[in-house]
Amino acid sequence: MRKLGIGLLGVGEMGRRHAENLRRLVPEARLVAIADVALDRARQVASDLEIDQSYASLDDLLANPDIKAVVIATPDKFHATAICKAAAAGKDILCEKPLAITLDDAHTALQAVKKAGVRLQVGFMRRYDPAYAAAMKRIEAGEIGEPVVFKSIGRDKDVPPIAAYQSNVNGMLFYTNTIHDFDLARWMVGDEVKEVQAYTTVAIRPELAQYRDVVASVLNLKFSRGAIGNIESHAQAMYAYDVRTEIIGSKASIFVGTVAHTPATFMTPGGGTQMLADHFLTRFADAYLAEMRDFVHNMLNDRPPRVSGEDGIKALAIAVAAEESHLQGKPYEVTHSGSRTGTVDDVRMKAV
Amino acid sequence: MRKLGIGLLGVGEMGRRHAENLRRLVPEARLVAIADVALDRARQVASDLEIDQSYASLDDLLANPDIKAVVIATPDKFHATAICKAAAAGKDILCEKPLAITLDDAHTALQAVKKAGVRLQVGFMRRYDPAYAAAMKRIEAGEIGEPVVFKSIGRDKDVPPIAAYQSNVNGMLFYTNTIHDFDLARWMVGDEVKEVQAYTTVAIRPELAQYRDVVASVLNLKFSRGAIGNIESHAQAMYAYDVRTEIIGSKASIFVGTVAHTPATFMTPGGGTQMLADHFLTRFADAYLAEMRDFVHNMLNDRPPRVSGEDGIKALAIAVAAEESHLQGKPYEVTHSGSRTGTVDDVRMKAV
Amino acid sequence: MRKLGIGLLGVGEMGRRHAENLRRLVPEARLVAIADVALDRARQVASDLEIDQSYASLDDLLANPDIKAVVIATPDKFHATAICKAAAAGKDILCEKPLAITLDDAHTALQAVKKAGVRLQVGFMRRYDPAYAAAMKRIEAGEIGEPVVFKSIGRDKDVPPIAAYQSNVNGMLFYTNTIHDFDLARWMVGDEVKEVQAYTTVAIRPELAQYRDVVASVLNLKFSRGAIGNIESHAQAMYAYDVRTEIIGSKASIFVGTVAHTPATFMTPGGGTQMLADHFLTRFADAYLAEMRDFVHNMLNDRPPRVSGEDGIKALAIAVAAEESHLQGKPYEVTHSGSRTGTVDDVRMKAV
Amino acid sequence: MRKLGIGLLGVGEMGRRHAENLRRLVPEARLVAIADVALDRARQVASDLEIDQSYASLDDLLANPDIKAVVIATPDKFHATAICKAAAAGKDILCEKPLAITLDDAHTALQAVKKAGVRLQVGFMRRYDPAYAAAMKRIEAGEIGEPVVFKSIGRDKDVPPIAAYQSNVNGMLFYTNTIHDFDLARWMVGDEVKEVQAYTTVAIRPELAQYRDVVASVLNLKFSRGAIGNIESHAQAMYAYDVRTEIIGSKASIFVGTVAHTPATFMTPGGGTQMLADHFLTRFADAYLAEMRDFVHNMLNDRPPRVSGEDGIKALAIAVAAEESHLQGKPYEVTHSGSRTGTVDDVRMKAV
Repeated sequence: MRKLGIGLLGVGEMGRRHAENLRRLVPEARLVAIADVALDRARQVASDLEIDQSYASLDDLLANPDIKAVVIATPDKFHATAICKAAAAGKDILCEKPLAITLDDAHTALQAVKKAGVRLQVGFMRRYDPAYAAAMKRIEAGEIGEPVVFKSIGRDKDVPPIAAYQSNVNGMLFYTNTIHDFDLARWMVGDEVKEVQAYTTVAIRPELAQYRDVVASVLNLKFSRGAIGNIESHAQAMYAYDVRTEIIGSKASIFVGTVAHTPATFMTPGGGTQMLADHFLTRFADAYLAEMRDFVHNMLNDRPPRVSGEDGIKALAIAVAAEESHLQGKPYEVTHSGSRTGTVDDVRMKAV
Repeated sequence: MRKLGIGLLGVGEMGRRHAENLRRLVPEARLVAIADVALDRARQVASDLEIDQSYASLDDLLANPDIKAVVIATPDKFHATAICKAAAAGKDILCEKPLAITLDDAHTALQAVKKAGVRLQVGFMRRYDPAYAAAMKRIEAGEIGEPVVFKSIGRDKDVPPIAAYQSNVNGMLFYTNTIHDFDLARWMVGDEVKEVQAYTTVAIRPELAQYRDVVASVLNLKFSRGAIGNIESHAQAMYAYDVRTEIIGSKASIFVGTVAHTPATFMTPGGGTQMLADHFLTRFADAYLAEMRDFVHNMLNDRPPRVSGEDGIKALAIAVAAEESHLQGKPYEVTHSGSRTGTVDDVRMKAV
Repeated sequence: MRKLGIGLLGVGEMGRRHAENLRRLVPEARLVAIADVALDRARQVASDLEIDQSYASLDDLLANPDIKAVVIATPDKFHATAICKAAAAGKDILCEKPLAITLDDAHTALQAVKKAGVRLQVGFMRRYDPAYAAAMKRIEAGEIGEPVVFKSIGRDKDVPPIAAYQSNVNGMLFYTNTIHDFDLARWMVGDEVKEVQAYTTVAIRPELAQYRDVVASVLNLKFSRGAIGNIESHAQAMYAYDVRTEIIGSKASIFVGTVAHTPATFMTPGGGTQMLADHFLTRFADAYLAEMRDFVHNMLNDRPPRVSGEDGIKALAIAVAAEESHLQGKPYEVTHSGSRTGTVDDVRMKAV
Repeated sequence: MRKLGIGLLGVGEMGRRHAENLRRLVPEARLVAIADVALDRARQVASDLEIDQSYASLDDLLANPDIKAVVIATPDKFHATAICKAAAAGKDILCEKPLAITLDDAHTALQAVKKAGVRLQVGFMRRYDPAYAAAMKRIEAGEIGEPVVFKSIGRDKDVPPIAAYQSNVNGMLFYTNTIHDFDLARWMVGDEVKEVQAYTTVAIRPELAQYRDVVASVLNLKFSRGAIGNIESHAQAMYAYDVRTEIIGSKASIFVGTVAHTPATFMTPGGGTQMLADHFLTRFADAYLAEMRDFVHNMLNDRPPRVSGEDGIKALAIAVAAEESHLQGKPYEVTHSGSRTGTVDDVRMKAV
């Protein structure tokens, strides 16, 4: 069997899952090497998965001629530069979301990809989730008529440690969490978001303000052709990992997702208690795998990736507008050009 | 048994239900007379329910000395003037929501009530729904900690006939539908809404624009103490009558409502199909009855009503701000003073 | 409006609900009088509902010429004799389930009804539940194909007090609880049960054995045309009142019922807790009302009742066979003739 | 990493899944060789999974000294002889359920295992399902009190082809399907089943009678210490693969399983349609993997397997009693000694 040689950059929680999937569950892939600024971590994962090579830098990884494609799972801040380097080395790329944390960086990355003639997929894995995919099939078949309202909820369960904010290597809530819903909004409604309005809160965790982040947000959306929407994001909802989307159409509607997870219910005089989902790696395990298989298959067969760099930058542009609305206290138009906060200055690879 | 003599004004769909409840299911009440500008309709309901008296005007109804309290179920536009007249006649009042459709009218009505020394309850019946009431009990007991996010959905099922818009006797979507969620927001979060931002759509029914109404809206909320929220309202969601609320707290959360109604599921190779709720009179049948019983009981026993005129005007103020946000395209502060569109000019009683 | 004069016999929990429904919610009925061996109880209910007459005996009730129909809600043991008397007095009858607790009594009662030319309905109110009715509509339309397996669960919540067993005025579990499922089995499968096999348990309450009753049972069914089934009944399931039925057909299936009741779910790190149903008067409130309206309407309009005496005796015959299987430890054929335990000896009316 | 060398016998649908899991998802295992009477099939799977060796006979497989453990996934009829041979060759064994299809064969197999001093696990993978495991944890912690009623449903979805019956290599419904519930019954109730009573049907597929099999069954259970139960099994329920279990305890209860699968619900005016589970390899994917990992881990570390040969023969004894009850039309005591239908005569390995 012909196999795609792959190098993986960044083995935090997310990168490790990609490594496991690539090593064990994607027959068309050969995971050649793992790189991480924390070399001991790279070595450990390589050892666990019986991969021969591990590196402390992306440059070393890219120098390996057996590697034809690179999976980028570093913290958000380093995505864009990593893409530029991988593209310059002629590798195809699967980059975790978000594509970048500034539009300038994102444009730079896309230009590098274009110039090098390589292919880039952005990690919006929800498109591969069986429930979202089934919903989309019906939408594309016209079964709900015209989309009128898009609603999405993305609640993480556990309280992030303060170090996660102090490290300053990831974007705020809109870039790390809501970005998935921005992609869903565009994909499922089949239209672009043209304006957003955000309210946010740090009420129960005021110390986040100094890191320019928030605990939760509600975000209204206006689409180009007249649909409207709302996305709620929450960094620490406590009770569960809860991702659900509803599309209200002119003829019918679709609800995706459920907070119930393991189907065991404990029945007492006080009520019936269901077990809930607790983590994205559990809820979207199938989606991460399907995403990787699809990426590898398309690369091997010279096909375009299913989720493009264009999708990445358009979702990012909504995040940027959302942050502006949050900062300025008024609705903000989504624009895809222009920079907001300058460029990434260095390339580190400490993983997500 | 001591009974409260009641007169009912307006026997549209809602008023008729109140009449039935009063006549049959509220032992402490005696429904003395029914009034409606459409006298034949008043007579028909009176006959069906074996009530002796029916009138074509509120004045005639108020002249009846057996009537100690009045239930107002006219179209929205006539609520305020009806309250003023009933108060002047010394009757206690249960008025359907909204209290009025302008803040000026609302203030006028509340002053009339105050001056006359009568009591006024506004028809936010969801507070009496067993599920909402159970949720509120837990919130009040501190079980969810501090409310952080308030989410509510209110979707009506069937497409309203164009005549409902042409008649121009009711407020737009925020006044007829979302007003319930405004009350829930204040009640469940235990805080005031200080700012709102609305996006609306007429995309699938552009003819509504000329009647200054909309098909659907998403409305972001900012509360005084730091919580945030979103309310989505839909006039014609097609698939069901769907009212659900979620309160995300700092320790735990509560979800209220379900779109499933009659518990019969048809299982085929294509899936399992549940029967859904279709109307507020079905979904909230118990709430309407509990509301009426509580009102009657409190009036008979000289207690204050559970939902006050103050609650009515505060919810109305949010609706006014929401409409302003919709019209002006920017967030709008909730203010409780000042008028927006002038006063009600005439009193008609054609029922809801 | 023409109204049916009704007398009610027995105002325990069930009879009282019938009285309330008749008095308040069945416009075609006039509840003329209430009788109960405990006269004070009859008087209290009459007073609460503003009924003029109350009696301590069925004979007195039957002597009232305004009464055209009788609702019988005494303990099971007295149903048959009450039917005989009411029939002899020329009254139409709605009798609570079971029709009787011996087949001899049941035959005697049906003969009395036939001889008198009156009409008799047996209180299988589940047929009137919106969910069961919706399911039946689909079955009758052929949508599930041929019924293959009938499954039903009937679990009561709270532990019955020992006095309920000591009083010895009701049949055992099969007659008071499972009898509903026997009727559903015949009605939904559209076929007769020809054989049953029962296992029962008193494991957690051995003192019930001396009263010839059980805590729970599982009962296998064999139908005449080849379908099979199982009914589980439980007198004290602790967690909820839980009634559910599944019909597996050759083409599709239908599930009826849900243990969830009030739609409020409390979400904590430990899971999501739903509120459950707790009593038949709550779960089947609509069914009891629809049953009464239908009975009254049919009597007034000289139509046959929807649930017949024949239905009553056939369900009883299954209960008798089930008890025999329980006693003899082997499958038992359902026969509709012959007596089992002799006849009812006296008529008392102490209510359910 | 130390790894357990494994040989797999039989690569039908089930065996192929075990092979995939062993090859890709059980790091402690090395799948050395695959054997199947259909050599081309063995070769195909070996090639797909990049396994070097494939054989047409168990004897060849057992001759391979790198193989320390054997996974048996042949048709039911050949399990016992395969166990005997593998034991004689000194290999540890994971054998698919049922252990055998006669008690004589089962005893012979267990004696062979004992004599050889090897270890044997029987493939009751539901014990490893997260929902069943979570339920069992609560039961073992005493949270439901004393188990009173055990209920289980096992419905396969699609109509089995007639060839599956004609091949005569598997046991009837009780041995292939209900056997899982027999194991759950013993495991979850913590007691032995002492008597069973079965009704079965071939009503919608009478041609099965000639193959001594049935379409569906309801099976009552009596446990030693007083609990009772019922298991329903269905070979072709059409609408879904539906496995659910309920344990009613003296203090609380647990429900396991749900027919809903992919969480996407299509909402139309006709209802809300959920997507359902369709196959055991989907529903129990996690369980099959956890089972294999646990087996391999325990073998590598010289621990006893979690599900024993004893568990296998005790579940089989219930199946034998169930078939006897079905054949004789009366309850049948579960006995663990004695033969029913003689011995397996030849060893073929055509896979499940």
